[in-house]
Parts: sequence; structure tokens; C-alpha cells
Amino acid sequence: MSQPESLARLVDELQRLPGIGPKGAQRLAFHILRTPRDEANRLCEAILDVKERVTYCSVCHNITDIDPCVFCRDEARDRRLICVVEEPQNVASVEKTRDFRGVYHVLMGALSPLHGIGPDELKIRDLLTRVQAGGVEEIILATNPTVEGEATAMYLARLLKPLGVRVTRIATGVPVGSDLEYADEVTMHKAMEGRREM
Amino acid sequence: MSQPESLARLVDELQRLPGIGPKGAQRLAFHILRTPRDEANRLCEAILDVKERVTYCSVCHNITDIDPCVFCRDEARDRRLICVVEEPQNVASVEKTRDFRGVYHVLMGALSPLHGIGPDELKIRDLLTRVQAGGVEEIILATNPTVEGEATAMYLARLLKPLGVRVTRIATGVPVGSDLEYADEVTMHKAMEGRREM
Repeated sequence: MSQPESLARLVDELQRLPGIGPKGAQRLAFHILRTPRDEANRLCEAILDVKERVTYCSVCHNITDIDPCVFCRDEARDRRLICVVEEPQNVASVEKTRDFRGVYHVLMGALSPLHGIGPDELKIRDLLTRVQAGGVEEIILATNPTVEGEATAMYLARLLKPLGVRVTRIATGVPVGSDLEYADEVTMHKAMEGRREM
Repeated sequence: MSQPESLARLVDELQRLPGIGPKGAQRLAFHILRTPRDEANRLCEAILDVKERVTYCSVCHNITDIDPCVFCRDEARDRRLICVVEEPQNVASVEKTRDFRGVYHVLMGALSPLHGIGPDELKIRDLLTRVQAGGVEEIILATNPTVEGEATAMYLARLLKPLGVRVTRIATGVPVGSDLEYADEVTMHKAMEGRREM
């Protein structure tokens, strides 16, 4: 036992975080050790504050400080257009495009029978309720282009179409700025399949 | 502004940690958001505890909960042998070998004129005092095999030899389990230079 016990415990706690292995945790712990006291305090306050304040929007299930969230509160956003994403962090990805002016619906995951995640574990019922309340014209399915995301999109499309809304899916293909040399065969296949007239 | 303010602040604080970029901070923040409340509390307690309890050993400057540290307290360790390292975390690296039975001296850095770190910024005077107090037979210089580490080792050797102790330097060469193909020329040169009779 060459390390002080409190340091060993911090390394242990840091290792629970995603993407942080034994070496990374060690490095972070030593950094925290060297860091000024009030910087460590600020980090802890920020952690506890997030746990304290952040809740989920009662309309779209996005994370928010105030319920309903900024998007659901914003009168300027187009409520006829709902973009469905898997996780709260995916909202930021769509917002980055700066030209989506509709609202969101966060599923809180994707269908994954292997992990015991069925339709009841996701916020699907709430989405149907929103559509049934009327006024929605198009649902953009922006779940991830993974097996689970595609399955979720297909499942939702089957549920939503009978309700008389337009259901669309974001495009899959080769990412902008990439090299075809590095595109995997499935992506390449999707890119060919989804080709458009120039 | 698509993120709750408290979440944005946590991302900001996490980004100050070494090796954590914007994406990593985002991922960690969302993890903390999802994590059970008492796990977040435990992490914060561990952080504050380290700041509270860990101090430096008054003998060797290693980090410790109790002063003097485990190594300096341990009667079974050989006080005739001092291993000099740059940082407290380097002590763990030497301990891993499981066959060093001497004590340590942590310099708290390496000489680096470019960064304004001269001999007075390091715990060099304390090392000389320990040697002058007598009873020390060998000093193993285990500073890093970098420009700064080598310069520090050479500087220390010049200071220590006149005090009548044996001064040694850890070997540099190709690491065990590596492939010569990936050894850089300086390492390869050191490995050739330090070759030993078989």
C-alpha cells in the first residue's frame, strides 16, 4: 500500500466514470491533489448542482433547469415538426445545424431486447399522446444509425403513420469531409442506395 | 443555448481536468446526470477528502495521510538507499517492481529553466541535508528519461558525489515486450550504449 487511503479512494471513484481507466483515474487524482482548493470545491459544487437542478421536461423529456424546457417554452419554434432523438445529448447535435426550428422528443434510449429495453422503457407513449393531441405534421426520426436506432425508427414509423403524420428518417451515408477509403461497407451501401439526382 | 445552465457549468469545470476535452467533458457530465445521487456524493466526498487529508511527508516529500509517510515510518526499509524521483506518482512505479527496499526522496519536479524551475524550486536542499546527516550509502537517480530528467540527474550527481555517496542512474533502453521496429533512435542509441555482457 504505497498510496494514502483517501487518494486510493478518489482513484477508485474516478474509475467508475465512463472512458476513465486506472491510469487516467490516477492522473486525474494527482491533478486534483495539486489543484487549488477552491477549484476542487467548484467542481464538486457543479456536480451536486447538476444533480440538484437538472430535471426532465414534462413535454419532450429533454433535460432542463426549468420545466417545460427552452424548446417547448419557445413560442417561435414550430410545433408542427417534432424531431425524435434517443438521448438528451442528441438534441445538441441537431441544434448545431442551426436550421431546425421545430421541437423535440427524447426517447431516453433505443429499443434493445437484448438489454431488456422494450417500448415501455422508452418515452414512446408520450410521443403518441403528443401526436394524437393534434397539430403535428411531420415527425423526423433522428435516432442513431445503429441496429438499435434503426429498429426503433422502424417501430415508431409503424406506430405513427396510421395517425396521419408524415414520418421521415435522417439520411445515412458517407460523412462530409471523410475519405471513401475509410467508409465501411454498410455506410457505403447506404450512401449508394440513398444517392440523389444532381 | 440548448443546455441547462448548471450542466453547461459542469461541462466547463470538467474540461479543466487534464486529458478531458469538450466531448469527454460532455460525456462525463451526462453520465453524472444519470448516475444515482449517492454515487455523485461519494465522488465529491472523495475529492474533498483528498484535499483535506493528503499532505506531504516532511522527510521525503511523498504524499501521505500521516506524516512521516509509510516508507519513512517503516523500520524494515533500508535507509542507506534513497531513490530520487520527480513526482509522488513515480514512487508507485518504483514500488511496482517489488524489490526496492530503500526509501524515497521526491523532488516535486525536474529542472526546467524554460519554465522557471531552478534548483530552489525543487526539494534538492532537503535531499542534501538527508545525505549530510549521514548513513546514506547510495542514491539512485530515478528521474524521468527526458531532457529535464537527465539534466536534473546530472545536476544532482555533481552535488552528491562530493558528499561521498555512491550515485547511480536507472538504465535507459528498449522497453521489455516492445518491438525494435518502434524504438526511436535516441532510445536505440541508449540501448546500444548501455549494452551488457551476456
